[in-house]
Amino acid sequence: MDNARFEAGKKAMEELFSQEVRKGMEGMKDISPDLWDMIVSFGFGDLYSRDSLSLSQREIVTLTTLITQGAFDQLRVHLQAALNVGLSKEEIIEVIIHCAGYVGFPKAVQAMGIAGEVFKEDSQNHSK
Amino acid sequence: MDNARFEAGKKAMEELFSQEVRKGMEGMKDISPDLWDMIVSFGFGDLYSRDSLSLSQREIVTLTTLITQGAFDQLRVHLQAALNVGLSKEEIIEVIIHCAGYVGFPKAVQAMGIAGEVFKEDSQNHSK
Amino acid sequence: MDNARFEAGKKAMEELFSQEVRKGMEGMKDISPDLWDMIVSFGFGDLYSRDSLSLSQREIVTLTTLITQGAFDQLRVHLQAALNVGLSKEEIIEVIIHCAGYVGFPKAVQAMGIAGEVFKEDSQNHSK
Amino acid sequence: MDNARFEAGKKAMEELFSQEVRKGMEGMKDISPDLWDMIVSFGFGDLYSRDSLSLSQREIVTLTTLITQGAFDQLRVHLQAALNVGLSKEEIIEVIIHCAGYVGFPKAVQAMGIAGEVFKEDSQNHSK
Amino acid sequence: MDNARFEAGKKAMEELFSQEVRKGMEGMKDISPDLWDMIVSFGFGDLYSRDSLSLSQREIVTLTTLITQGAFDQLRVHLQAALNVGLSKEEIIEVIIHCAGYVGFPKAVQAMGIAGEVFKEDSQNHSK
Amino acid sequence: MDNARFEAGKKAMEELFSQEVRKGMEGMKDISPDLWDMIVSFGFGDLYSRDSLSLSQREIVTLTTLITQGAFDQLRVHLQAALNVGLSKEEIIEVIIHCAGYVGFPKAVQAMGIAGEVFKEDSQNHSK
Repeated sequence: MDNARFEAGKKAMEELFSQEVRKGMEGMKDISPDLWDMIVSFGFGDLYSRDSLSLSQREIVTLTTLITQGAFDQLRVHLQAALNVGLSKEEIIEVIIHCAGYVGFPKAVQAMGIAGEVFKEDSQNHSK
Repeated sequence: MDNARFEAGKKAMEELFSQEVRKGMEGMKDISPDLWDMIVSFGFGDLYSRDSLSLSQREIVTLTTLITQGAFDQLRVHLQAALNVGLSKEEIIEVIIHCAGYVGFPKAVQAMGIAGEVFKEDSQNHSK
Repeated sequence: MDNARFEAGKKAMEELFSQEVRKGMEGMKDISPDLWDMIVSFGFGDLYSRDSLSLSQREIVTLTTLITQGAFDQLRVHLQAALNVGLSKEEIIEVIIHCAGYVGFPKAVQAMGIAGEVFKEDSQNHSK
Repeated sequence: MDNARFEAGKKAMEELFSQEVRKGMEGMKDISPDLWDMIVSFGFGDLYSRDSLSLSQREIVTLTTLITQGAFDQLRVHLQAALNVGLSKEEIIEVIIHCAGYVGFPKAVQAMGIAGEVFKEDSQNHSK
Repeated sequence: MDNARFEAGKKAMEELFSQEVRKGMEGMKDISPDLWDMIVSFGFGDLYSRDSLSLSQREIVTLTTLITQGAFDQLRVHLQAALNVGLSKEEIIEVIIHCAGYVGFPKAVQAMGIAGEVFKEDSQNHSK
Repeated sequence: MDNARFEAGKKAMEELFSQEVRKGMEGMKDISPDLWDMIVSFGFGDLYSRDSLSLSQREIVTLTTLITQGAFDQLRVHLQAALNVGLSKEEIIEVIIHCAGYVGFPKAVQAMGIAGEVFKEDSQNHSK
């Protein structure tokens, strides 16, 4: 294991995800510790920790690619991450609408339905 | 034809594309005037002309979805558009690198190769 | 909002979907009224309301693209729509079989399983 | 080799493709005679030779799946096949326009550009 | 029906799948006996029964294509098949890790999660 | 830069690719040295250099994912790599045939055409 890259990844994950989400993600360690190391060190350490794009710009990229490839389970987690790093609900909705013209309505509609659920949970958490 | 939407679309296209590119796009009118109207009125009028995201944020979405779906002919045109609306080469390269983790290296490598060509042409145009 | 396009879209949706399905779709209005307007005005108003193809031919296109892109939630709704606009179960099954050669068996098998469920519900509704 | 299936496939191919196109396809025999047999016996013999859908309905399915998966080389050949089995240019254009809402504009635009080329070649052949 | 091809397919399926899984697959017969025949005769008879690759090499191909196209329901069944024909858990995990670089982390992560579940069920079955 | 990972990657690339191909790949260094480092260190260093699968098993995975995602430019390079690490032409053809049932004929046909070209070049190089 490459400690600097892994530590950078862990730090990026703390900015993006709640403790509960990170706990869920760590389940990967039990199945494949090597893939877990790559996710943290490469995915979050090498990629999210880079300069040149802000975390909110990175989440625009992430939301768009997940919508385009129909990866809706991961989209749910990154919709919350997008809110966490400062994208507004209006901006997230706008990313999905823009995608409609590029990937077609079926994926945009499915993404918007999930966004509606995530926004609702987020409001409930903040009103507690 | 719905004039306000079409005019909004034409205006957005002027901000995004050079006169030469727009001329090439208009070839669509001869094959299907109806699809041409939808491209301008819906694609650029209804989508690109909206508020909530800047044109440079919209191009981040567009580049990402084109890389993810492997639409490399359209990517070439939008790499130039991304430069035109103010994204730096560094930011564009960063979008492609971020995508590598989400769509895999083959598409990221192909996208970066095309970006290299577009950046070279762009430098030559500006040094004239 | 562009009333003629929106009204055309609503009329097409009435031919395609049951009242219950349309009611479910309208949930989109609460999350993003703008995407809802695009779905109705562009998706159903501009596209489904056009001439040149019948609604049953349009549903052949729709089923095929949804199977190909693996959009199985939307497929369920359009399998019912295909029956509503007059495609026979035999024709729908045949579309899925034809797709097997073009998109591979995994997606064809998944589509056929959903078709089996939709056909069963449809028979139960008609025997009431 | 299964003669009845292979002969049925050859017959379907004669209805779909010009002699020149079939000659080109046969190049597969030199690389992999087994894949060639599957293409003819399964692809055209088992699938295109079935009842329940007409050849022109089958080409609507084929064009749609090829546009959706971005298989533009194969699309070119099947645009010509679609004309050969009786779809009008207007109907083909309409299939592509309908797809725009389901797969996004980039693939629809690319498909329409190829359709424009195929229609032009077709007109030149008929005016000879 | 073509008996030799169908019988070859049934034999291959017996090597790949448990009786319970095959029973579930046969549900297809009630919806579309023709697609069922193609699955057995073409999918398993023509393809899996061929020489040149072992069944465990074939399952490497199958797992990879299912991960790449995001066909996760089918992946579950073939993860079990991969164990049945002799791939080790370590080799299966390695296929998924290799895919991460080619299709991106979202699909690799989803595949690994399902593999974790299948491996757990498999251990429980063997400890009975 | 992380020297051990980069060196491992360079070593794997020497086993997979001819000097000429590696020279072409290095063009990436001029466009984005960071992506180049990731390709070598992560793609080839972290992934191809791992145990648990042989290089020829890894190329089966690679060919399959490239065919499935339609990445035909990268496929060409990896068809040659597959021969270099010891897969026979017969095994490569068999991977493509197996894919036909999982991704459909259009992509299998396109892959086989490219394989035919690569095999021809390979024979010419060996007869020199």
